[in-house]
Amino acid sequence: MKVLVTGAGGFIGTVLLQLLQQAGQVGSQPITALAALDRQLPPLPGTVERIEGELQDAQVQARIASFAADVCFHLAALPGGAAEADPALSRRVNLDATLDLFASLVAERAASARPPVVVYASTIAVYGTPLSDPVTPVTPTRPALIYGAHKRACEILLADATRRGQLDGRSLRLPGIVARPRVASGLVSAFMSELMHALAAGEAVTLPVGPQATAWWMSAQRCAENLLHAATMDPALDTDGHSERTWAMPVLRLSMLQMVETLSALYGVDGRTLVRYARQEQVEAVFGRYPVLDDAIARRLGLRDDGSAEELVRRALFPFSCASRTSSFVA
Amino acid sequence: MKVLVTGAGGFIGTVLLQLLQQAGQVGSQPITALAALDRQLPPLPGTVERIEGELQDAQVQARIASFAADVCFHLAALPGGAAEADPALSRRVNLDATLDLFASLVAERAASARPPVVVYASTIAVYGTPLSDPVTPVTPTRPALIYGAHKRACEILLADATRRGQLDGRSLRLPGIVARPRVASGLVSAFMSELMHALAAGEAVTLPVGPQATAWWMSAQRCAENLLHAATMDPALDTDGHSERTWAMPVLRLSMLQMVETLSALYGVDGRTLVRYARQEQVEAVFGRYPVLDDAIARRLGLRDDGSAEELVRRALFPFSCASRTSSFVA
Repeated sequence: MKVLVTGAGGFIGTVLLQLLQQAGQVGSQPITALAALDRQLPPLPGTVERIEGELQDAQVQARIASFAADVCFHLAALPGGAAEADPALSRRVNLDATLDLFASLVAERAASARPPVVVYASTIAVYGTPLSDPVTPVTPTRPALIYGAHKRACEILLADATRRGQLDGRSLRLPGIVARPRVASGLVSAFMSELMHALAAGEAVTLPVGPQATAWWMSAQRCAENLLHAATMDPALDTDGHSERTWAMPVLRLSMLQMVETLSALYGVDGRTLVRYARQEQVEAVFGRYPVLDDAIARRLGLRDDGSAEELVRRALFPFSCASRTSSFVA
Repeated sequence: MKVLVTGAGGFIGTVLLQLLQQAGQVGSQPITALAALDRQLPPLPGTVERIEGELQDAQVQARIASFAADVCFHLAALPGGAAEADPALSRRVNLDATLDLFASLVAERAASARPPVVVYASTIAVYGTPLSDPVTPVTPTRPALIYGAHKRACEILLADATRRGQLDGRSLRLPGIVARPRVASGLVSAFMSELMHALAAGEAVTLPVGPQATAWWMSAQRCAENLLHAATMDPALDTDGHSERTWAMPVLRLSMLQMVETLSALYGVDGRTLVRYARQEQVEAVFGRYPVLDDAIARRLGLRDDGSAEELVRRALFPFSCASRTSSFVA
């Protein structure tokens, strides 16, 4: 089984690549070739084929075609803020190049071969804001960012390519993922990752939302595990048929206070003194009022959240460590 | 006000162009220039600017940019059957060229100018089959044809361009429109138009659905009137806010028997002997089980159906004739 990861140098792509190398297989099929695609790639083991370049470049697309992946995890994207700042570039990367990728995946494939599996990293940004409560599989999408609009368009066109038997698409709508590296990203939502890094280091932190603000949480490790699972899960288990091959990832819905208390207990710090709440109404409206997510269908397909706040923290800060290490966190 | 019609040589475009020329204005604004775009155009009055060529041609896009329309009615498309037979061409015409059109409309426009109005002819094919009962503004879209998938993608991206203040988009989901010219079109749904032509001519006709089969009906004239109205209607009247600037056109939901009886009375023919029902289960499943359409919001915005079966027949077979002529139909 030949596996391609786009966006392999990114936050989630790095974790997914590591997971694929550890697992050595997708479902029960051994991985015979693994290719990593990104604009820039860190050093990788020699067995990983490196495809460095812009997704929209013809040469990159040609290499995708000749690699002839059986499974493609498509994570490469121009992020929300950058897309909003340059709508034409968002079209080239998040729409055109994605559709070119879909075409490249089948370009050199025998007509008799099984259609390549595409696990597409979509986004909860397809719902827009404010989120309806609850969010269900039939919640109408109303993207409020061009990033979400292009992702939604690709979900629809991947479902169509699946209907036509060209690809075997599985779109997963990703929530914000923690814990992003502790560098200035310009993302307003960075406070979620910063809260974890700060309390783990015993440092003070100021949140732009109140203690009762609720968010959807998922570690990069669980996200990568879900993406891997999505490649072999049986979409027919979605008997409700509303999905268009599109599912929101199950999430933990936790308040800031719950996270502060979890981190305080795990790291033996006093969150009540370290955390200051400087509530900004606009930030809380977008990032602090996540409603209930009806993810029963996604769970039926075997997709999972992190299990508990404690497990979330462990996976987010120490991906691939053993579960039994959790207790050793307390100083 | 400068007005551009794409697909102006087509079935609906021809009627819309005629309506625009008769009206001489859009809302209360006089039309100062009118451009017609299509692959091939019939002879047109000298005051209409002709843009002949493929929508995806760079030269055509350049002429669109320099025309700098205030209102664009975008009807040009590769139809459903042709799109399904050539998915790559559907992408070029129904997605790429449509997004290029959106870009061309603003390319040479002053930043201070009002965003151009785009009335986009979408399709009820975005819902897929079978249609949920009833179809409402929050019915999930599940296109079952690449034509519907590309139209849905463009609805989303037109809504996004509207959100960004680049365009002022209004997408209308068109039902099947009658009465298409009596030539072999290859469309399975052609039986709806053929029924009207045949009974009006006193000829026998065989329908692939039963007498109780229900369909959504609309004349090309009413469709064109709705498209024209859409250019000036106030989207803010959609207070439910579910729309993404997208509305299904209100329709008459009539059974075949109702249409046969209406045509029989209007034309003084015996529909019971002229019409044979050779019901095909598959055809009836797609074209004979149209559910109730909840079009309350579209009606609030001023969109209309044909009013009655009699008016539908009059407008479908004699566009732009006076209402008072209806009675003279009976031989």
